[in-house]
Amino acid sequence: MKPKFPLVAFASILSSQLCVAQNKAPADDWKPAPSNQAGKEYPQFNSEGRVKFRIVAPKAQSVGVSFRDSSDFAKGEDGAWIGYTRPLDEGFHYYTINIDGADVPDPNSHYFYGAGRWGSAVEIPAKDQDFYALKNVPHGQLREVHYLAKSGDTNRHAFIYTPPDYDKDTTKRYPVLYLQHGAGEDETGWGRQGHAGLIMDNLISERKTDPFIIAMEYGGNPFAGPRPTNAAPVAGGATNSTVAGPSGRTFNFSAFEKALLEDFIPFVDANFRTIADQPHRAMAGLSMGGMQTRTITLAHLDTFSHIGVFSGGSIAVTNITDMTAFKEKVKLVFISYGSRELGTNRVGGARGGLGGDPKENVAALKAAGINSVFYESPNTAHEWQSWRRSLREIAPLLFKD
Amino acid sequence: MKPKFPLVAFASILSSQLCVAQNKAPADDWKPAPSNQAGKEYPQFNSEGRVKFRIVAPKAQSVGVSFRDSSDFAKGEDGAWIGYTRPLDEGFHYYTINIDGADVPDPNSHYFYGAGRWGSAVEIPAKDQDFYALKNVPHGQLREVHYLAKSGDTNRHAFIYTPPDYDKDTTKRYPVLYLQHGAGEDETGWGRQGHAGLIMDNLISERKTDPFIIAMEYGGNPFAGPRPTNAAPVAGGATNSTVAGPSGRTFNFSAFEKALLEDFIPFVDANFRTIADQPHRAMAGLSMGGMQTRTITLAHLDTFSHIGVFSGGSIAVTNITDMTAFKEKVKLVFISYGSRELGTNRVGGARGGLGGDPKENVAALKAAGINSVFYESPNTAHEWQSWRRSLREIAPLLFKD
Repeated sequence: MKPKFPLVAFASILSSQLCVAQNKAPADDWKPAPSNQAGKEYPQFNSEGRVKFRIVAPKAQSVGVSFRDSSDFAKGEDGAWIGYTRPLDEGFHYYTINIDGADVPDPNSHYFYGAGRWGSAVEIPAKDQDFYALKNVPHGQLREVHYLAKSGDTNRHAFIYTPPDYDKDTTKRYPVLYLQHGAGEDETGWGRQGHAGLIMDNLISERKTDPFIIAMEYGGNPFAGPRPTNAAPVAGGATNSTVAGPSGRTFNFSAFEKALLEDFIPFVDANFRTIADQPHRAMAGLSMGGMQTRTITLAHLDTFSHIGVFSGGSIAVTNITDMTAFKEKVKLVFISYGSRELGTNRVGGARGGLGGDPKENVAALKAAGINSVFYESPNTAHEWQSWRRSLREIAPLLFKD
Repeated sequence: MKPKFPLVAFASILSSQLCVAQNKAPADDWKPAPSNQAGKEYPQFNSEGRVKFRIVAPKAQSVGVSFRDSSDFAKGEDGAWIGYTRPLDEGFHYYTINIDGADVPDPNSHYFYGAGRWGSAVEIPAKDQDFYALKNVPHGQLREVHYLAKSGDTNRHAFIYTPPDYDKDTTKRYPVLYLQHGAGEDETGWGRQGHAGLIMDNLISERKTDPFIIAMEYGGNPFAGPRPTNAAPVAGGATNSTVAGPSGRTFNFSAFEKALLEDFIPFVDANFRTIADQPHRAMAGLSMGGMQTRTITLAHLDTFSHIGVFSGGSIAVTNITDMTAFKEKVKLVFISYGSRELGTNRVGGARGGLGGDPKENVAALKAAGINSVFYESPNTAHEWQSWRRSLREIAPLLFKD
């Protein structure tokens, strides 16, 4: 399952404008990326959003990077190869270095789980990065837990975010948001590249949201085992594009549904001070996690009251079998997309096969009397910057009486 | 700071026996290493403790690995290079792949922080791996925390292990072990490759130790910034060998001492249900962390009652300025080494410059009436298997009245 270039169709749409950008010399205001390992000067980003790499490979014949439309890498006299990307969207991007045909992590970057592997990613600081910055505010904890899944007699692994004052007043109980990653990602994503903890710490310190617990489990990998040869490639600049796209692939979420309802929720309710009822339980997810959220919440309206789908489709009025029950039980439907996913010509975009146009669906839900919100992340695609912002937007809307 | 081969002197001592081993065909009972990423068949280990690698690099001229005395890698018709190591000690070893002169992580392995970088490591299952296996026992939590360091007005990052029943009875308070990593490592080491949480979960479930909290902070990196050109190399098979060796390098632990005493301990005592007094506070560490433990505890006997030094020197009677006070305040001195560090001819071994022979020192402390224990990890060197075992051995000895 090696990361390759993103959707070819997507690339060709943009190729003309990119060629122009390529011919211009990049702006010479490079700075080390915040995703670098401590002490590493590369990768660097510039004011255009390009990323510059430096790979020491003195005997290599060729060095490259998985971002499409990158410059050719050139070897300097010091044996180091230098190359750079096209202007990228601000935010977080998975990538892979290629050295003489070998796809390897960049030795300079931190590593993240995405695109079906632990590997490199680069962060291009976003103009709104302040909302997930580490600040001098009270911090919650990200807790790594192991527990026995009764339904499968297996050991499972999850992360639980507890808000800043969780251990101060041990009589207080909290609502819970179950928050899911995308395909090719895992339970580490939201706490690591998603910055879920810092987003919550900052929102809580600014009194923009009431504190709640976030529970993050592994939602499965539809690409596990031998990957079908006809599957579209994953990652490069955009992640998991195929999941949200009109690929016609069908996912079966029943194993995760069972694990979530029979194992994970009971574990969280038994081991954390939750308010263990439907009004205080939300589910949200990105991409495949959004599809899971839609499927599982619609089938379990007695379990979840708040629904968040980030870049993973939407809910049409026609998806709701019992509108009276839905209106009574569901307190929020939150749908979001990156703006670059929404164009009518986009492959992998919001119009493709996942329940119809998301804005129209949200408008129809509102008209039907359901508290529904549509959020569009400006100038981002199917990537973590869209999803970090989606969490920032949904959090203040959750668990309001 | 790129990982290279371990100490040359150490290698040459063993070279004759290794050459014999190299000429024999390796045992053909390879199995995927438990340190591999999910779904990856390589690296593999065999019954001799060799590790076999497979690196897809179809256009490369040469592929190698940082373990000394490894076989040459050979390219197959499928473009994948295969090579294997000499027989290694069981346990955990950092390594780096080299492709045409580029030192990169193995795309097949999980990544760990050690040898001054996030990079590859391989686990060769040890015969006694059961003590850190994930079992169906009650589990504690590994909590990632951020906090403001008052002394430096900086944000610091740490991990706290809380035992299984920590959240069940919120009136119970616990002793704390402050547990430090080695040079070139960081606060992730004990929770990740050290398996501190699983070791404690298993010991507690077997009633071999009483539950306590483990607090793990970043102890600094003496190699930060430009590394001195005369510094001995770090990592490869053994990690941080130079730290325990008679290199003559001096470490200055005052910044960490200040952070530990003025920031970290107050943070832990304020945010966790600790028994915040000297009898219930221990400090231990590996390699450089052991040296820090020795330096800091000897200077602060009113803060710590239990002392653990793993592969980082020992405490001689002559190090103790006030024997009466020491005997009154110190309830345990625990010293450990891997057996392969202890030979009289070993460079980087226990006889080198860190307070004299550790067994003799422990015997002298005992004779002086101090509760002292020496532990020798069988058939391991300056590596994590020695330190996992050291934690297993010291835990039952801590906080006994």
